[in-house]
Amino acid sequence: MNDPTKVDAPLVDPDVVAQIKTWKGYVEAKLGFRNCWYPSLNSEEVEEGKPVPFLLAGEKLLLNRIDGKVYCMSDTCLHRGVPLSEKVECYSKDTITCWYHGWTYDFKDGKLCDILTDPNSKMIGNRALQTYQVEEAKGLLFIYLGDLDEGEQPPALERDVPPGFLEADRRVRPFRRQVNSDWRLGAENGFDTTHIFIHKDSKLIIGNETMLPLGFAPPPGKMNDLWDRVETDAGQQGVYDRLADHGVPHFEGKIDGEVVLKAIYGGDKRIAGEISLWMPGALKVDPFPDPEMIHFEWYVPRDEKSHWYVHCATKVVPGEQGDESFGREYDAVWKDMYAHGFNDDDIWAREATQDFYDDDYGWLDETLFESDACIIAWRKLASETNHGIQTRVRDRKR
Amino acid sequence: MNDPTKVDAPLVDPDVVAQIKTWKGYVEAKLGFRNCWYPSLNSEEVEEGKPVPFLLAGEKLLLNRIDGKVYCMSDTCLHRGVPLSEKVECYSKDTITCWYHGWTYDFKDGKLCDILTDPNSKMIGNRALQTYQVEEAKGLLFIYLGDLDEGEQPPALERDVPPGFLEADRRVRPFRRQVNSDWRLGAENGFDTTHIFIHKDSKLIIGNETMLPLGFAPPPGKMNDLWDRVETDAGQQGVYDRLADHGVPHFEGKIDGEVVLKAIYGGDKRIAGEISLWMPGALKVDPFPDPEMIHFEWYVPRDEKSHWYVHCATKVVPGEQGDESFGREYDAVWKDMYAHGFNDDDIWAREATQDFYDDDYGWLDETLFESDACIIAWRKLASETNHGIQTRVRDRKR
Amino acid sequence: MNDPTKVDAPLVDPDVVAQIKTWKGYVEAKLGFRNCWYPSLNSEEVEEGKPVPFLLAGEKLLLNRIDGKVYCMSDTCLHRGVPLSEKVECYSKDTITCWYHGWTYDFKDGKLCDILTDPNSKMIGNRALQTYQVEEAKGLLFIYLGDLDEGEQPPALERDVPPGFLEADRRVRPFRRQVNSDWRLGAENGFDTTHIFIHKDSKLIIGNETMLPLGFAPPPGKMNDLWDRVETDAGQQGVYDRLADHGVPHFEGKIDGEVVLKAIYGGDKRIAGEISLWMPGALKVDPFPDPEMIHFEWYVPRDEKSHWYVHCATKVVPGEQGDESFGREYDAVWKDMYAHGFNDDDIWAREATQDFYDDDYGWLDETLFESDACIIAWRKLASETNHGIQTRVRDRKR
Repeated sequence: MNDPTKVDAPLVDPDVVAQIKTWKGYVEAKLGFRNCWYPSLNSEEVEEGKPVPFLLAGEKLLLNRIDGKVYCMSDTCLHRGVPLSEKVECYSKDTITCWYHGWTYDFKDGKLCDILTDPNSKMIGNRALQTYQVEEAKGLLFIYLGDLDEGEQPPALERDVPPGFLEADRRVRPFRRQVNSDWRLGAENGFDTTHIFIHKDSKLIIGNETMLPLGFAPPPGKMNDLWDRVETDAGQQGVYDRLADHGVPHFEGKIDGEVVLKAIYGGDKRIAGEISLWMPGALKVDPFPDPEMIHFEWYVPRDEKSHWYVHCATKVVPGEQGDESFGREYDAVWKDMYAHGFNDDDIWAREATQDFYDDDYGWLDETLFESDACIIAWRKLASETNHGIQTRVRDRKR
Repeated sequence: MNDPTKVDAPLVDPDVVAQIKTWKGYVEAKLGFRNCWYPSLNSEEVEEGKPVPFLLAGEKLLLNRIDGKVYCMSDTCLHRGVPLSEKVECYSKDTITCWYHGWTYDFKDGKLCDILTDPNSKMIGNRALQTYQVEEAKGLLFIYLGDLDEGEQPPALERDVPPGFLEADRRVRPFRRQVNSDWRLGAENGFDTTHIFIHKDSKLIIGNETMLPLGFAPPPGKMNDLWDRVETDAGQQGVYDRLADHGVPHFEGKIDGEVVLKAIYGGDKRIAGEISLWMPGALKVDPFPDPEMIHFEWYVPRDEKSHWYVHCATKVVPGEQGDESFGREYDAVWKDMYAHGFNDDDIWAREATQDFYDDDYGWLDETLFESDACIIAWRKLASETNHGIQTRVRDRKR
Repeated sequence: MNDPTKVDAPLVDPDVVAQIKTWKGYVEAKLGFRNCWYPSLNSEEVEEGKPVPFLLAGEKLLLNRIDGKVYCMSDTCLHRGVPLSEKVECYSKDTITCWYHGWTYDFKDGKLCDILTDPNSKMIGNRALQTYQVEEAKGLLFIYLGDLDEGEQPPALERDVPPGFLEADRRVRPFRRQVNSDWRLGAENGFDTTHIFIHKDSKLIIGNETMLPLGFAPPPGKMNDLWDRVETDAGQQGVYDRLADHGVPHFEGKIDGEVVLKAIYGGDKRIAGEISLWMPGALKVDPFPDPEMIHFEWYVPRDEKSHWYVHCATKVVPGEQGDESFGREYDAVWKDMYAHGFNDDDIWAREATQDFYDDDYGWLDETLFESDACIIAWRKLASETNHGIQTRVRDRKR
């Protein structure tokens, strides 16, 4: 229980949590979820024998590649709590030695395997840093942010990525940015049907001969049918937005009955047909930004006030040269017009929302409307199907 | 009541408030008062159809001029709490549309009059942003920071400005600066009789041939007569400092009986004869800085730690060209020697005081002396005659 | 007792204090100790008649030299709490006058001896700022941070400096830096036997032909004999590290039984023989960095998150020219190779540790090992022998 004599404030205002009825767990998940896979660095960012720090869900982690395989361990020395990455000292392939007092950890199991300043210490072999399993897929390093018993295997990665992401021959270009907002404001920005309003003057519309409406009218009599909640055979938990899918798009904005704004007409391409959001926080837009492509993006909690925005342009390109070929296409066409030209606007929108939700009261003071039905569905799904709420490292020890 | 399990701290330390006896309301008014008029932007800063944000008493506001008249509305969209001013989108003369999801508000009554992304939403017409009435006077835009019932009119502006400010032919040059101190430290700095000590080497003394004492001795046997509290027929509530008025000025400073400091003698002009402080926080110095001029200045709460210092040089200049003529005089003579030369010192003095009062304990730990009698009188007046204490927007919703 | 309805957080988390068994006082001493001598500015930094501010243990102080003797007084005016040093105004040799309202204080006793704006105030002679006694020794100004009754004398300075520091003909070169960590992380960094690991590639090793081990093995069967706690006849309280003294140095680091690291061999000079830490927070290393020299360093609390690192190179050099002669040696040889070359690493190490201990939970979450026995001994000594815990000025008034 929350003890008011503590100096340290609780992670989330308990007064706000108490007032939320059906999606408490989501409000509590300011640092995201536990016991699930999150993408982190790109594969190519972690080279053999060169540990790299990464802040995930409030935890300082260290990733290293040993004989090709990537390992992940806490970056905080057990002894005096300093970051090992402050000055990297690796004296053997499998280990890192703390620069301060020589405590040496094995990347594979986190074990304190030696102490260079005192080889006879009884601590040796009897303490370990937290480690997390890493799986490499589609150019991303996924971390299983969860607790496993000795020998226990984590769930399959597939459970925690949107359907189709792992498809053979699907080529992925991951592009990670830090966004200074709560990860949930990222997820809701992406999934939110009517936020397309901010993209109405995106260079993608003209550049890609696209037709982008200003909004959608919910299908008449279908107010309770604006979303579908699904669980796949692989255990993936997601919500589909049916407003974007089945609603009536409109291309004119009216005030007092008069047309005041018309959508830019870039061409006849209809994109963004099917939009879905998946646990623990990944969007799928199929197709996007082109009829041949599927867009995936992750909102990975970084700390209480920021997230990693992992943007993935993808396309199925068969053949041995598929990666290289799609890479060239991405660099030439999509990086500027789509990753930047379209999604940069989402970044500043999320950051503009942070102030209102920063003290948790935004969850109570917001005013949602009909088109946000899919967001509420997502919040409930996230509350009900998560495998644990991530807390501060310090609180987990208590 | 204050709930200790909340993450968010109360605006003012309840322990301090509990220890104050006769001017509790003043200590609570860290964000100023409610249901009163405050000056904000200068008239000329708000042009037709160009909304401008302004932070007043912890509230993000937006001012816009429509057909010549200025309107004021909350700058925080009801939907997801973003600032409308982050990216101004006005598609009709009377409205602003939120850049995020197209929620559109009428400046005149704050009504949510349309939603461009969903013209059929039931929210339309049934929600409204907070609006505040605006009155334009003497080149300033006054905002009535208060709650009015449908059709209710605010009190006359005159009630909340010092006597004489609205006088016909009184020409006013408003000059606004942000000062990084609590607004009350501004008000007390200005009203405080003995703070003239900091102005002892002001360029105004020589430049304007002025006689400025180092301080005043309270008139013998008149220790209880250092101030007058008044209420005018117009309802203005103020305190006059009678120490500056009736006390014995002295021009020499002594330590251990020896003269160690002499006031600079600039000339025979006696200025600053009558000093008074008015609710909700405006000073009048008559005359100042010249026998023909009256000085007014407002301390307008901006947030918990800063205020707007609205400095008004004024003079009665009859005739059609009065404004222009006084404007030339102000720019040529007064801006440098008076607004900057004299009052810049007040700004750093206020900012130097902030640290001590920042956690509210300064109100308990200060040591006032006889000459501060008028400050205590002001604190009591402010506690007794205010029409409400301004709170955080969030707390008002609870 | 801690009152949870207060806005202001307690200095130290009471929940952490409650869990510490044998060294509670040390955890509470985030701002250091009271009723003891701390070094502050160097003698030469305080010139005749030129007051200089200094932040000590959370208190804003002002030091001034009058007729050669240095006095120390609070820098916070009693009246409205502003720093006197914000704009120094001294109108007589013994006093400082507040720039705001002319309150004038005598440096020798802190008395409010005059008020230049109101020479008749009854406050005059009846109020006083806190003063602290100052003693000058070895080029340092020591402040007795304690409360004395009228006429009471503080304990001898000798009690609060390590043995030998005040020795005749011992020449001292003090060098003060601000370090952004809690003072205790400074003290423990310096005393900590195995932190020599961070110095393994110091330029001092080659430059001074020194032999520096990577660590020490505790002497077999002597695990309870790794330190000595002493009280001298002069009342000095200290702990000697016997691991560095009696342990078995090793010059090779092994992982899995294989040598992976060898100490740099600079030469045969053995230094740092005897290491001891003294109340209220001063290290002695004898000899260091040369067989003829003794190293002393103080960790002086500055505020909750920073300390003054007062580094003192010392050597006995008899004769009238001793000071000058050692000064030349220090500037030519030791400043670069030792004060910077060796101890700069300690500064970043301390700062890298701050984050973990910042919220007090580091004291619970750390994992100490055998070689840290002397640190635990120090913590107990500090808890048991201090003469008071320093608190915030504000809390002391309550």
